[in-house]
Amino acid sequence: MENRLEKQMEFSLEIDKEKNILRQTHLSGNGRRENDSEHAWHMAIMAYLLKEYSNEEIDICKVMIMCLIHDIVEIDAGDTYCYDEEAKKSQAAREEAAKERIFSLLPEDQKKEMIALFDEFEAFETAESKFAHAMDNFQPLILNNSNDGADWKAHGVNAETIHGRQDKTKLGSEVLYEKTNEIIKKYQEKGYI
Amino acid sequence: MENRLEKQMEFSLEIDKEKNILRQTHLSGNGRRENDSEHAWHMAIMAYLLKEYSNEEIDICKVMIMCLIHDIVEIDAGDTYCYDEEAKKSQAAREEAAKERIFSLLPEDQKKEMIALFDEFEAFETAESKFAHAMDNFQPLILNNSNDGADWKAHGVNAETIHGRQDKTKLGSEVLYEKTNEIIKKYQEKGYI
Repeated sequence: MENRLEKQMEFSLEIDKEKNILRQTHLSGNGRRENDSEHAWHMAIMAYLLKEYSNEEIDICKVMIMCLIHDIVEIDAGDTYCYDEEAKKSQAAREEAAKERIFSLLPEDQKKEMIALFDEFEAFETAESKFAHAMDNFQPLILNNSNDGADWKAHGVNAETIHGRQDKTKLGSEVLYEKTNEIIKKYQEKGYI
Repeated sequence: MENRLEKQMEFSLEIDKEKNILRQTHLSGNGRRENDSEHAWHMAIMAYLLKEYSNEEIDICKVMIMCLIHDIVEIDAGDTYCYDEEAKKSQAAREEAAKERIFSLLPEDQKKEMIALFDEFEAFETAESKFAHAMDNFQPLILNNSNDGADWKAHGVNAETIHGRQDKTKLGSEVLYEKTNEIIKKYQEKGYI
């Protein structure tokens, strides 16, 4: 058991690095850039509070742990901005290698469990994955909205690209998709995107 | 429903502020100070991975959401360093007022649910609360340990004070308490505490 606990502690220490991975999203109030661990924490709480809007029945415990770990691979692979088409091409390979290295720090059974959760999230097929993805979109959306769309303006992304990603929220939650659309429309009307 | 979602979004935006509340713990590698949201994210993942060491059967979903929200009151009340006896005197009153203001942003049913979870954590009586508290101790402990005890040295805390807090880990997990003791002993032998 001693060795098992040592492995779990080593993994726990390793993921501390996620706090240094910066995203393109800025904290509300147009502050500094958000990091991956803050984003994951925020997503998990939002998932819990907004679970009533999931299209399908979900195991919220599974959604939360999925949200909490979904970006761990970025410790090695870095953050890939969701509207950066060039970086997205190499994203899968970078994240695959990272997944193997980082989760291998855990005891074998937990490595398998964490990789299964990570893969389930990526596959975007189960109800839990779809709702977790809705959070992955909706969380930065409310921050960006509070900052008058500053992140979109800074990157010069257009409405079509934004819809390309944000429309997938519909797969997890029709209600949150409706709200998403309303927000995107507001920035189109302002001429920002 | 529209009004309900608006309230949930307002609360979700409000808790973004937790990312600006700095703790006394430093990230591994002796980096910058950790913030509350990073700490909560780390605790929730560690709770999930270390749940086998809980003394009692626990609802891990409840433990995770408890970990995620347990510091939200610090948005108004600020972080109180666990070894600062002066600040701890006024902590309860500051946190009570903060709890009322912040959770009141939510729809009434969710306000009640979140306050019940927060109060359960604070009361330190249920199995879930005891294990969440063990994480609240064990998470900064592994960071501090990775930094050669720098946080304890910086504050000049002694072994007795450290034991006063860390010994409560025993209530949630005998196994993690044993490891805790081992770590504290190491720094005593080094003469740091």
